[in-house]
Amino acid sequence: MSFRKAKFNMLMSEMENKNIDLVVITDASTVTYFTGFSYAEGSVLVVHKDGLFELYVPVLDYFRAKDSVKDISVKAYARYPLPEVEIKDYVRKGLTDAIVDIIKSERVRSIGLDYSRSRYEFVRRIMEKFKDELKLVDIGNVVSKLRAIKCSEEVEAISKAIKIAEESFSKIISNLRDGVSELKVAGMLDYEMKKHGAEDYSFPTIVAFNENSVYPHARAGTRILGKGSVVLIDWGAKFNGYCSDTTRTLSYGGSSNEFKKIIEAVCEAIDSAIDFIKPGVKGNEVDAVARNTLRKYGLSKFFIHGLGHGVGIDVHEYPRLSPGSSDVLEPGMVVTIEPGVYIKDKFGVRVEEMVLITEKGCRVLTSLERSMSI
Amino acid sequence: MSFRKAKFNMLMSEMENKNIDLVVITDASTVTYFTGFSYAEGSVLVVHKDGLFELYVPVLDYFRAKDSVKDISVKAYARYPLPEVEIKDYVRKGLTDAIVDIIKSERVRSIGLDYSRSRYEFVRRIMEKFKDELKLVDIGNVVSKLRAIKCSEEVEAISKAIKIAEESFSKIISNLRDGVSELKVAGMLDYEMKKHGAEDYSFPTIVAFNENSVYPHARAGTRILGKGSVVLIDWGAKFNGYCSDTTRTLSYGGSSNEFKKIIEAVCEAIDSAIDFIKPGVKGNEVDAVARNTLRKYGLSKFFIHGLGHGVGIDVHEYPRLSPGSSDVLEPGMVVTIEPGVYIKDKFGVRVEEMVLITEKGCRVLTSLERSMSI
Repeated sequence: MSFRKAKFNMLMSEMENKNIDLVVITDASTVTYFTGFSYAEGSVLVVHKDGLFELYVPVLDYFRAKDSVKDISVKAYARYPLPEVEIKDYVRKGLTDAIVDIIKSERVRSIGLDYSRSRYEFVRRIMEKFKDELKLVDIGNVVSKLRAIKCSEEVEAISKAIKIAEESFSKIISNLRDGVSELKVAGMLDYEMKKHGAEDYSFPTIVAFNENSVYPHARAGTRILGKGSVVLIDWGAKFNGYCSDTTRTLSYGGSSNEFKKIIEAVCEAIDSAIDFIKPGVKGNEVDAVARNTLRKYGLSKFFIHGLGHGVGIDVHEYPRLSPGSSDVLEPGMVVTIEPGVYIKDKFGVRVEEMVLITEKGCRVLTSLERSMSI
Repeated sequence: MSFRKAKFNMLMSEMENKNIDLVVITDASTVTYFTGFSYAEGSVLVVHKDGLFELYVPVLDYFRAKDSVKDISVKAYARYPLPEVEIKDYVRKGLTDAIVDIIKSERVRSIGLDYSRSRYEFVRRIMEKFKDELKLVDIGNVVSKLRAIKCSEEVEAISKAIKIAEESFSKIISNLRDGVSELKVAGMLDYEMKKHGAEDYSFPTIVAFNENSVYPHARAGTRILGKGSVVLIDWGAKFNGYCSDTTRTLSYGGSSNEFKKIIEAVCEAIDSAIDFIKPGVKGNEVDAVARNTLRKYGLSKFFIHGLGHGVGIDVHEYPRLSPGSSDVLEPGMVVTIEPGVYIKDKFGVRVEEMVLITEKGCRVLTSLERSMSI
């Protein structure tokens, strides 16, 4: 897609600014971000300062990469020698050796790596060959900030992922019945998302009933649905490589006053954050607005995580909306707003929306009702 | 579970052998391996030389960890400050600072890290505090080899995962009809696995029809099933944290002679490898046996990946069965045997079994027919 060209150009200009001769990207999601090549584990993107982009893939991924990635040179590297295989662009070397060769032949003096997303062993093996002759530059912030600002094609993919996720959710909650297990509900939702065109879920679907909902990262298990159950569902679809991420907490067959009060407070916290959000505000400021809303009701001590995070190729990306985050919001960022109240041994309530930061404020991308009884 | 105690003891004795004062494990799957704590992203296991094990988790995972992990001290660390939260074991520090404190207070002189599974940034931030005063020791091989040898509880979990995967597969293939898409078949299979008790899939289910099956890592998409289709399915269930991994390639509504010849050769390659496998043989030797079988039929140049890999908490683990692998097979290892023949623009055929290395040879854990027409 052509929007990737613009992203490459931004990376190139950062290389020039920081005086970086070569960038090597080893994490699958950033490789996908720049190339569109999906499920890129083991694949590495090499960016030369003259503007040449090369995707190095393990031999077994060569044809898939070659057929799906255009405008980028694809090379196969040898995780192990396969002498009989006939591939034109087969370097027949291990990845480290292939990178070392480039550094030598192009007399690279400074190499840009994403420190937080690179493996220690990979960096160590490169650096031990060159010691002080090669300068290491962290491009983690550059990559994170580039990925944070979504162009229209990316917003479209995320919006489509949200649409799939919401339609699938609406379908399955109308079919909830006494006696169904968390795992079965999760399985139904995942299946609906695939039927609606999702290529995958964004993360293992969380379905948590009652006391299991007190864990923000609850795992779906064998608990059974019954009248009066609290049902927390946190789920997302993946479309064209981009994620959605939404949470709803429902009452099934009647709800307590305590539940009603808490979900009202949680929804008010969302509204207060959405009203506040605009370009230039910091992550900790948005978090504080929602946290203050919960504090009015004595609930802030039960809010045991940050308010939200960026979403894109990964379900958790820059920026963070949390206490201590000085990340500054900018137009084009897509973030979650997800206050939660977790009362141990009782239940948890979390509602999660996704918003796009606009020039003047934000646009809510999610559209399901925030509070539902079924 | 008590089997984890034995694993800890093995780690402790390696620490003594290598003179390591402190081990810090930062990757989610090894944390799960030692503690049973699932979905452990962001959690870190600290092993002190006096035998104290501590699991550091982000605040939001504290109660889930505390409720599910026994015999291990659980501490919450601060990815961001949450001053109102009342948790007894809350260190109220970032992870790096918490680790630095331990190193200082226990006068740690050597720290064991898994180089291949640790992030560069994490290691860098620890080491810049101590420079040459702290010796770094790679425990990657120790961890990989420990994880490779499965005890009976682990073999049982893997066997249960295989049973779930196989029953689910049998159910869905009897329902395949003209016009169904790859994604829908993948969704059906995932749903069946959850209904049968899987906590998740082991990896995104591959369903590939016809020309899409030539990619070993094909992605399920919108292709439609029709008479004469080749159908490659590579799938696995997760049970109690352990993975299965199986592949079958079917002909739907009739198959060509070419397909029949290839699948026979692939199955013969599996038999030849299984007959050969026993403790003491190397990964490259097993690979060569299967590759030679395919070579007899002129098919080895289409076999573009290694023959197999270990399976456990991760779907790809030590050892590797591939050209160039000197990994030595030992009783208790569980590995895949998965020869494949990929003929560009036509179709690919892969059949994948899982075997347990025994004292005298191996036991095949998978039980589905290897070749099927539907």
